[in-house]
Amino acid sequence: MLNNSIRKELTNIVGKENVSFLAEDTLCYSYDATGEKNMPEAVIFPCDASEVSKVMRLANANGFAVVPRGAGSGFTGGSLPVNGGVVLTTERMGEIEIDPDNMVAFVGSGVVLGELQDEVEKHGLFYPPDPTSLKFSSIGGNICEGSGGPRAIKYGTTRDYVLGLELVLPTGEVLNTGVRTMKGVVGYDLARLMVGSEGTLGVVTKATLKLIPLPEFTRTMYVTYASLEDAAKSVSRIISSKVVPSTLEIIDSYSLRCVEQCTKTSFEGVNAVLLIEVDGIRESTEKEAAVIKEICIDSGAILYKETEDKHEKKDLWQVRRDISPSLFKIRPTKINEDIVVPRSKLTELVRGVGEIGKKFNVPIACFGHAGDGNIHVNVMTDREDKEDFERGKKAVNEVFLLTLKLGGTISGEHGVGTTKAEYLDMELDKNAIDVMKRIKATLD
Amino acid sequence: MLNNSIRKELTNIVGKENVSFLAEDTLCYSYDATGEKNMPEAVIFPCDASEVSKVMRLANANGFAVVPRGAGSGFTGGSLPVNGGVVLTTERMGEIEIDPDNMVAFVGSGVVLGELQDEVEKHGLFYPPDPTSLKFSSIGGNICEGSGGPRAIKYGTTRDYVLGLELVLPTGEVLNTGVRTMKGVVGYDLARLMVGSEGTLGVVTKATLKLIPLPEFTRTMYVTYASLEDAAKSVSRIISSKVVPSTLEIIDSYSLRCVEQCTKTSFEGVNAVLLIEVDGIRESTEKEAAVIKEICIDSGAILYKETEDKHEKKDLWQVRRDISPSLFKIRPTKINEDIVVPRSKLTELVRGVGEIGKKFNVPIACFGHAGDGNIHVNVMTDREDKEDFERGKKAVNEVFLLTLKLGGTISGEHGVGTTKAEYLDMELDKNAIDVMKRIKATLD
Repeated sequence: MLNNSIRKELTNIVGKENVSFLAEDTLCYSYDATGEKNMPEAVIFPCDASEVSKVMRLANANGFAVVPRGAGSGFTGGSLPVNGGVVLTTERMGEIEIDPDNMVAFVGSGVVLGELQDEVEKHGLFYPPDPTSLKFSSIGGNICEGSGGPRAIKYGTTRDYVLGLELVLPTGEVLNTGVRTMKGVVGYDLARLMVGSEGTLGVVTKATLKLIPLPEFTRTMYVTYASLEDAAKSVSRIISSKVVPSTLEIIDSYSLRCVEQCTKTSFEGVNAVLLIEVDGIRESTEKEAAVIKEICIDSGAILYKETEDKHEKKDLWQVRRDISPSLFKIRPTKINEDIVVPRSKLTELVRGVGEIGKKFNVPIACFGHAGDGNIHVNVMTDREDKEDFERGKKAVNEVFLLTLKLGGTISGEHGVGTTKAEYLDMELDKNAIDVMKRIKATLD
Repeated sequence: MLNNSIRKELTNIVGKENVSFLAEDTLCYSYDATGEKNMPEAVIFPCDASEVSKVMRLANANGFAVVPRGAGSGFTGGSLPVNGGVVLTTERMGEIEIDPDNMVAFVGSGVVLGELQDEVEKHGLFYPPDPTSLKFSSIGGNICEGSGGPRAIKYGTTRDYVLGLELVLPTGEVLNTGVRTMKGVVGYDLARLMVGSEGTLGVVTKATLKLIPLPEFTRTMYVTYASLEDAAKSVSRIISSKVVPSTLEIIDSYSLRCVEQCTKTSFEGVNAVLLIEVDGIRESTEKEAAVIKEICIDSGAILYKETEDKHEKKDLWQVRRDISPSLFKIRPTKINEDIVVPRSKLTELVRGVGEIGKKFNVPIACFGHAGDGNIHVNVMTDREDKEDFERGKKAVNEVFLLTLKLGGTISGEHGVGTTKAEYLDMELDKNAIDVMKRIKATLD
């Protein structure tokens, strides 16, 4: 419990306009995209590492929990104040400085990803990571979760763009680590150790990010198939053709049926859709699109559409945007997992997931990043219906077992957080867990 | 000192043909590319993680040092047995397994990089890291040093290709960490913490590496300039033109003068050379080369040569290959540093280094990866001439100070090892060093 003296000290650190103990304010910081909720006792808005440091020292001296939070858009509960205490939000750390000559950006951890991308693109540059949450998720959150997105197949994930970090350790020390150059191997790679550590090793306050030139041209392809096998065959053949698409997304039959049911779109006879993009100079996108077209048609595509027009692109992507709202109309609770399997195991995975859905009598929708084997498996259930929800959770458990059997991982880009913590030892070596615990303990 | 009982136990672990205590054998494992030398008491050749584990446990129980060693091609002394003890070489861990469908390779840490690349290319795939030592350096060494090379400008360094690792902790536990998929965020990123840790956190025994499609076409350009400024201007303009060359190397005037003196080549009127490559599909390399040509000529190039012919390419690269042998003819000892500065500071760096050379009366040759600001600064001295060598070391110290002043790092791809250990606190935050020490201590 935060006594009056602690409340006063917190207020002294950031000023009274930057901390709140009122339920109407703290409520907004009690949940994330999991739908779970835990009320904190306070929410605090520090403006820099020095203020974060003071909060951490106060917390250590008085034994209350501090939960760092970006935009709260996470799917795994990493920003939930499960032990109450103080939610420390990074939203005031919003500076963006771009060095176009050296192609780096210096960014406060509270900057929203989409805003950074807009700024960067003004310089003809590109910051590729593109989680679907890009319009509201923060850079700090992206770093702590190791966010990916559709473009990861060609451009990698957040991890590949973090050059350096300013962060505050759990004990309050401010630390600058990494470099502002394209290379650097002095000392242990603490910056990348922080990527994906979900805020458990420190609070990220600033990041130095690598930028690349903005591709001058993007071409979008929309391809439908009567069977998942045909779509998966296309994926394998595209990958082995040496063309690297900037996006290669798959949508399964169940997702299409949901969209059909909830929108006016018809997908008659269609059981899988691929959305593909290639980018680069015009000539190379033309050549790559031609290769992809031939593969898709030869693999049994029903319909192949291709465009370079901005508005038409948006139309082709509509089905992808329709999935989530449609799923919620079918069932109120979506247990959203983001497993990854070796690309060659894609069909096996989607088939297996279908069987798991039947076994536990829960609908499961699969869609996502076929190009890197990262599939969003959405188990549709109802949190309020205990029995149904339990069946949903059992289905998730079997999905994870199947994923690991296929040589995959239980999280590609959403993290572990609170929702997957119980499954951690399914995947990780016990010696690895032990090392992680020791690293955590030595920084605490 | 290794007593008879320890010697017997080491022999029991690997068999008598895989360990030696004889000076004629251990001598070969006493030095690396720094030219420094420390004799170990034994050299051991374990074949897998289980044997490495037994060696580590024996060392802990008896308090002798174990120094892991790849091919001994390092420039910073990381594999030198400075405290005697046992050199543990990975050369018997030589297996290569390639999964072309999923574009990953499973590789023993003793595999020589060049051999891996040959195997990978048979499948039309590509493992881009290309340190100059590629014909003899090992994958384990590359991982521990975070090796780069000319292609890093487009393709990144070893760090960007390590998906998972098998390793043995200093205490002997065998640990599997990371994934075999393109994405994965479960738990702390121990695999990447190991990259660049120079063998201080464990012995890497196997690696899962990411592969990409082999570019179908490479075009090479050789450009000469009367002034370094003109060359540097070309570099900046190429970078900001959105063309990303696969290689963008610079050679300074001093290096050219040495080559001139030691070979029959004339570089009259030439004070800087750029070697540039672009790769991809033919059409894009043509377009990119045209952009580069225009920039180079407009920036004052004296001579521009371009080729797609394999043999002509080799000729264009001859000057780069001639540098090292020529330098050694001029002075017997080369203190080889690999600092990195933001690309825009390239001219300032090379000019500043020239002044430092004059101040301490030691010749300094600069060449290397202009595209990512990673310049090999070679201070030419004579280890046997104490006074001269001391001046050389003072010059290195000032080069480091200049590098850090320009926002750079003192090692881009060679590591810290024994040779840069004394300079570590010049660059690193004291809190960062403290965290690194704590991580090391918790694993020891």
